[in-house]
Amino acid sequence: MVDFIARIKKIQAIMKRQGTEYMVLAPSSHLFYLTGLKTTADERVQLFLVPAEGTPVMILPEMYREMATNLEKKSFHLLTWADGLDPVDLLLPLINKPSGIVAIDERMWAGHFLSIRKAFAGYEFMGASALMRQVRMIKDQNEMSILEKAGGLTDKVMGEVPTVLKPGISEKEIAFFVENKLKEYGADEVSFKPIIASGPNTSSPHHNTGERKLILGDLVVLDFGGLFQGYCSDMTRTFSIGKASEEVKKVYNAVKEANEAGFQAVQGGIACEKVDEAARNAISRAGYGQYFVHRTGHGIGLDVHEDPFLVSGNTEILKVGMTFSIEPGIYLPQQFGVRIEDIVGLSEKGPVRFNNFPRELIEV
Amino acid sequence: MVDFIARIKKIQAIMKRQGTEYMVLAPSSHLFYLTGLKTTADERVQLFLVPAEGTPVMILPEMYREMATNLEKKSFHLLTWADGLDPVDLLLPLINKPSGIVAIDERMWAGHFLSIRKAFAGYEFMGASALMRQVRMIKDQNEMSILEKAGGLTDKVMGEVPTVLKPGISEKEIAFFVENKLKEYGADEVSFKPIIASGPNTSSPHHNTGERKLILGDLVVLDFGGLFQGYCSDMTRTFSIGKASEEVKKVYNAVKEANEAGFQAVQGGIACEKVDEAARNAISRAGYGQYFVHRTGHGIGLDVHEDPFLVSGNTEILKVGMTFSIEPGIYLPQQFGVRIEDIVGLSEKGPVRFNNFPRELIEV
Repeated sequence: MVDFIARIKKIQAIMKRQGTEYMVLAPSSHLFYLTGLKTTADERVQLFLVPAEGTPVMILPEMYREMATNLEKKSFHLLTWADGLDPVDLLLPLINKPSGIVAIDERMWAGHFLSIRKAFAGYEFMGASALMRQVRMIKDQNEMSILEKAGGLTDKVMGEVPTVLKPGISEKEIAFFVENKLKEYGADEVSFKPIIASGPNTSSPHHNTGERKLILGDLVVLDFGGLFQGYCSDMTRTFSIGKASEEVKKVYNAVKEANEAGFQAVQGGIACEKVDEAARNAISRAGYGQYFVHRTGHGIGLDVHEDPFLVSGNTEILKVGMTFSIEPGIYLPQQFGVRIEDIVGLSEKGPVRFNNFPRELIEV
Repeated sequence: MVDFIARIKKIQAIMKRQGTEYMVLAPSSHLFYLTGLKTTADERVQLFLVPAEGTPVMILPEMYREMATNLEKKSFHLLTWADGLDPVDLLLPLINKPSGIVAIDERMWAGHFLSIRKAFAGYEFMGASALMRQVRMIKDQNEMSILEKAGGLTDKVMGEVPTVLKPGISEKEIAFFVENKLKEYGADEVSFKPIIASGPNTSSPHHNTGERKLILGDLVVLDFGGLFQGYCSDMTRTFSIGKASEEVKKVYNAVKEANEAGFQAVQGGIACEKVDEAARNAISRAGYGQYFVHRTGHGIGLDVHEDPFLVSGNTEILKVGMTFSIEPGIYLPQQFGVRIEDIVGLSEKGPVRFNNFPRELIEV
């Protein structure tokens, strides 16, 4: 049982220490982390107002009353508004100070932010993640073990992928297979739309899975994950349909070495950017530096992308309890791309990979 | 083939007429409508800057370059930024006027909005939908026929639902069945997470589909839709597992009559709120007015919820080409709820239902 009141108190202590009067959350993982409420953002304003001191207030459309009442348990007051009324009228009387700092959920829709701005006319705005990250970046034992389990189940799905990787199957059909397998193994949903890129599409890191059918000689990049007990998995492997060319093998090995170099670089006390540097150096040494066009990794937890980011310039210090991806890639425009991604957790005993499906090139 | 340049010109004409200097879009249906670019919002800033005059500029992370280049076709300039750099540095030099009005995509993440604000220091902000709705609310023939087809395919899925509605199946298993069927019939994905509510859960209009298993005597509310060629479907039916009680029948009939009254009220030239009023009156006459806790409907198109909204207070005039849901419901707290939802389009010949699965209470 998660102790939401304790989580709220922890955040309020940080707010007081930093001089932040209010935090306003929207439907997001921040909100879920503090209250257990999981709703989807839409055109109806949903707000969670956390003052530095005192009981938070949830402002929801009337239609969510019953859902929220079931959660309430004294950790917040609930106010609801009916269609046709203005939720900002509920917010206005709650803001007692004429000025200060208010932290805004980065995932709040800008449209809603524009509408609540008048309640904070004299205020300075900051992002809520600057507060929330301090709590959420460090996973407790329970969170770590859910993430590890999620990784193992995603490995199982990846293990079944080769059975369908045959010439003629389309990217969308592969995505469909992967989604169903993730759910079969216990995912409530996908943690993001699977990226299935084949042939020349592999040169786009975030390819939109499409109708292209596999042909012999293709590379196939599969990047997918599920949501297990609220926590995300995320992994990538690259397969070859038939024999891979020498160039493909060379690129593949550079990416594999970068993945390993990144993993080996992980240790408590170093800056996040050092992991990026280690992976990037491996790819540069192989001569492909300019084709590694994204950061090495991102934190993962309730969100599939969250702090800390393994990127040049990030001097955040790695600590026990952090969990993140290591996912170097090389993308040769108009030709092909390769990416190998694992989720890694930093435990008391050092880094642990939550994905352990083989990282060798598999020719199916 | 959609003519994106024509769509951009139409919006620029509106901007000029209304005195809006710039519009800034984020990944959203607005962006898709104007450019064909379909990406997911995440922590990396993705912007589309439309000036009232001149060529728009797309600012994307480097990793999207190839995807965007394939779209470009002279309708916009592309600028990209690499991880570790600040995309706002690309935006700043593009803003040539010291003050004016800038329209912001309502779905932009507030975090990104806060970071680009400095480029618009002397500006007033408004929502981009106030511009985009003028174009998007009226569907052309092609859009109408895609929406009608999407409705028919969703009807087919609803038609297969009774085969699995048996005591013992869980809400999540039903959702899984529905998702797969939608995809089997051609949906690229669901247009929203299916709402499958059973037994007492039906009294929450937006219940989070869960582990509860059906038992004899339950009502089951199924509210789902798919994304077909970019356009959404959305429909709701309520089934009874076994014989329904007299009270259930009374509530059901009130909702059915409200659905019909709403549909009959639709005609060009009347205000949107009149449709809400017609449906609401039918429910009030049956004595359940206070339990119809949401508006009667929402527009639908590229977004599952978009303008126009059928809600009290909305004086927007219904016009040929508008498409929207009619979805009255009654929710008796702690007891049960009923909702019946169809998508309706206003054609030259009057209102047309895109969902035609029977609206009678089905006892399975």
